[in-house]
Amino acid sequence: MFSKAVDVPKAETIIVGNEITSGLVQDTNSATLAKRLLEAGVDVSRVSIVGDDEKQIEDAVVAALGRVDLVVVTGGLGGTHDDVTKSVLARAFGSGFRRDDEALANIERIYQKRGAEISPLALKQCWVPEKAEILYNEKGTAPGLLFKKNEKVLFALPGVPLEMEHLLEKYVLPRAARPGGIKLAHRMLKTTGIPESRLWELFGPMEPLEKMVMVASLPSHLGVRVRLSAWGNTDEETAHKLDLAEKLLRIQIGEYIFGVDDETLEKVVGEMLTRQGKTIAVAESCTGGLISHRLTNVSGSSEYVLESAVTYSNEAKTARLGVGAALIAEHGAVSRPVAEAMARGVCETAHADVGLAVTGIAGPTGGTDEKPVGLVFIALSSGEQTLCEEFRFHQDRVRNKERAAQAALNMLRLWLKSSDSWVPCSGGERQD
Amino acid sequence: MFSKAVDVPKAETIIVGNEITSGLVQDTNSATLAKRLLEAGVDVSRVSIVGDDEKQIEDAVVAALGRVDLVVVTGGLGGTHDDVTKSVLARAFGSGFRRDDEALANIERIYQKRGAEISPLALKQCWVPEKAEILYNEKGTAPGLLFKKNEKVLFALPGVPLEMEHLLEKYVLPRAARPGGIKLAHRMLKTTGIPESRLWELFGPMEPLEKMVMVASLPSHLGVRVRLSAWGNTDEETAHKLDLAEKLLRIQIGEYIFGVDDETLEKVVGEMLTRQGKTIAVAESCTGGLISHRLTNVSGSSEYVLESAVTYSNEAKTARLGVGAALIAEHGAVSRPVAEAMARGVCETAHADVGLAVTGIAGPTGGTDEKPVGLVFIALSSGEQTLCEEFRFHQDRVRNKERAAQAALNMLRLWLKSSDSWVPCSGGERQD
Repeated sequence: MFSKAVDVPKAETIIVGNEITSGLVQDTNSATLAKRLLEAGVDVSRVSIVGDDEKQIEDAVVAALGRVDLVVVTGGLGGTHDDVTKSVLARAFGSGFRRDDEALANIERIYQKRGAEISPLALKQCWVPEKAEILYNEKGTAPGLLFKKNEKVLFALPGVPLEMEHLLEKYVLPRAARPGGIKLAHRMLKTTGIPESRLWELFGPMEPLEKMVMVASLPSHLGVRVRLSAWGNTDEETAHKLDLAEKLLRIQIGEYIFGVDDETLEKVVGEMLTRQGKTIAVAESCTGGLISHRLTNVSGSSEYVLESAVTYSNEAKTARLGVGAALIAEHGAVSRPVAEAMARGVCETAHADVGLAVTGIAGPTGGTDEKPVGLVFIALSSGEQTLCEEFRFHQDRVRNKERAAQAALNMLRLWLKSSDSWVPCSGGERQD
Repeated sequence: MFSKAVDVPKAETIIVGNEITSGLVQDTNSATLAKRLLEAGVDVSRVSIVGDDEKQIEDAVVAALGRVDLVVVTGGLGGTHDDVTKSVLARAFGSGFRRDDEALANIERIYQKRGAEISPLALKQCWVPEKAEILYNEKGTAPGLLFKKNEKVLFALPGVPLEMEHLLEKYVLPRAARPGGIKLAHRMLKTTGIPESRLWELFGPMEPLEKMVMVASLPSHLGVRVRLSAWGNTDEETAHKLDLAEKLLRIQIGEYIFGVDDETLEKVVGEMLTRQGKTIAVAESCTGGLISHRLTNVSGSSEYVLESAVTYSNEAKTARLGVGAALIAEHGAVSRPVAEAMARGVCETAHADVGLAVTGIAGPTGGTDEKPVGLVFIALSSGEQTLCEEFRFHQDRVRNKERAAQAALNMLRLWLKSSDSWVPCSGGERQD
């Protein structure tokens, strides 16, 4: 579900590059521009992607300036022969060229830092259209350009995402957001362990919520993100609306929300472990190291991640984790008793406060009628107490690994949240 | 570097959806369409991304049909109120609507499979423009449409990538590729362990190569992909040109090529282990499980991956891998002797044929002047023979993990390729 605001200023973006039109490189600039401009209260109504072709670029620029007051062009500002955006824009705005000393100094500074000699192609980039304001680029050698004509404004930015974002933040957004104009703010509530349709059922009647915010849900195989968007006259007003809406939603679905905005599940779990002064050890079979990889993506995780054993073979499960060979023979390596023994085993061997273990059939081969591909057992143990849940995923091998790792980290989150009154996360009706 | 062919038929694509123009969802359809059409000998010269807005869609369609003979539109074909593409196209081509029984049967079939009752919104999708040819969609409920007018052809496809690709393969490509027309084929040579500039130096004079193919290089932090593209009158001709060009390039850079097209480093290494009947065990510190995760992404990897130890703490390095506490105290956990001891240790404990070990400082904290962030030691051991290489990466934590894992898998590849005459992969001049 998604609804879109009206009555806000419109912009268009033009993405230039043969590598994009040919599908060789995936464009991400248009999405970044749309997101950041929308947050500044400007709605991107159209994106044009054109090749490094003078006529194509000119047509797109003229058409866009005919429809909207703000146009952002990215790409084609470098020094090589296929970078033609600068000359097209100079012609379109009736401008000659001049050398810009600050742009030149910047090129020299960057080449000096790299310890390289400046090439003639790089030097070309200090020649800029006389009628443009120069947007100085600290991250690269090609400066951005700002053209104005009557009420119309055109920004030209380099195509390298890092440089584009730098100039977007430094020059475009401060001018695109009209002073005193309407503001738009977003908040992303990140959930896992619940399907999208069930989430909307739990929301209940949407009217009270929709008086304050727009709600959009974005499902993936790892969970559903719920995006709240609020319009207002001030930052305080939008923040207040988002706070209220988040509170309302947390009453209904708080259980399933693991983080907000850029928070990842591994970061949230890491903070809980740090706060509680607990250490963790992991025993992975079908996830093959992915849980450990995610846990250790967090800076500072060496404080609480003691170790992890990827025990792919039965022998390793026995030798490394003390899982009885007889237990494996009786129940099979993918079973509840083995998952529990793995969690207890890794917890004890590593002298950790929590042991987390996963065993399952990632596929595409290895499944049977009784134990199909996608069957996964996840267990947690504190040594004294051990719990296990059974999951049935589907799809392909890598997705099964990703889903199992996500479910395991979420179980860990719920366990850390209330390790004294555990209710499985698939129970659904648990209140916090 | 990238050069683009001329004198081939042109097409334009139009991507419809508020979720795309707003930046909420990253468009991938335009890149897929461009790639697949280019392979069929059709060059996408322009992409327009517009919102779910009747006027915007109509403008884009009319403009595109004015410029090229082939237009592909995706999105806005579903049954909800913001899906307006179908009605815009019907109006543009002067067409009324009719019910299509086969489309209806398909909707019923899909709902029956899901065990759900058909909603009125879903039913709406069997109403189609009279003047369109229907493109039956086995993957979803919205059929695609094909409109013709004079020499112009417009395909309208659903926006869901899976459904879009299905109809692209089934209907668009067979008609877009003109019978007897010129063909384009690609081959991607994937390299790692060498910077892009050095690669082009090794290529030498490009003229002999460019007589047969176009060459484009695509760098990332994990390696450089070299794309060869060949035009020809038949599939045999393009394949022959690509074979010759690949042979020429392999003389210069064969050392660094680990795979072709969709081959991954972990798949290539897995095939080598399988062929040689060897097993592997991994000891990871700074990569935190990523090497094991990648190795086990390959179906069938349980045949050769015995186990893996993520030994984040010094205690775990000693207890699990038998790395002497005194050795760690003397050299530090991030050192050549410790990496070598880890590789030997995991090889012996797991009774594997090869032990692979990584220790390093992923950052952003934990670095010193002597041992900066990005310092990584990677070691390989067969028990008898042990080798170690030192790497200096930069950038952020996750990228350092990714680079270290890539370098480790590449060392393993070179070791397996000639385990009797080892030369470090950074040596550069080794001949195969």
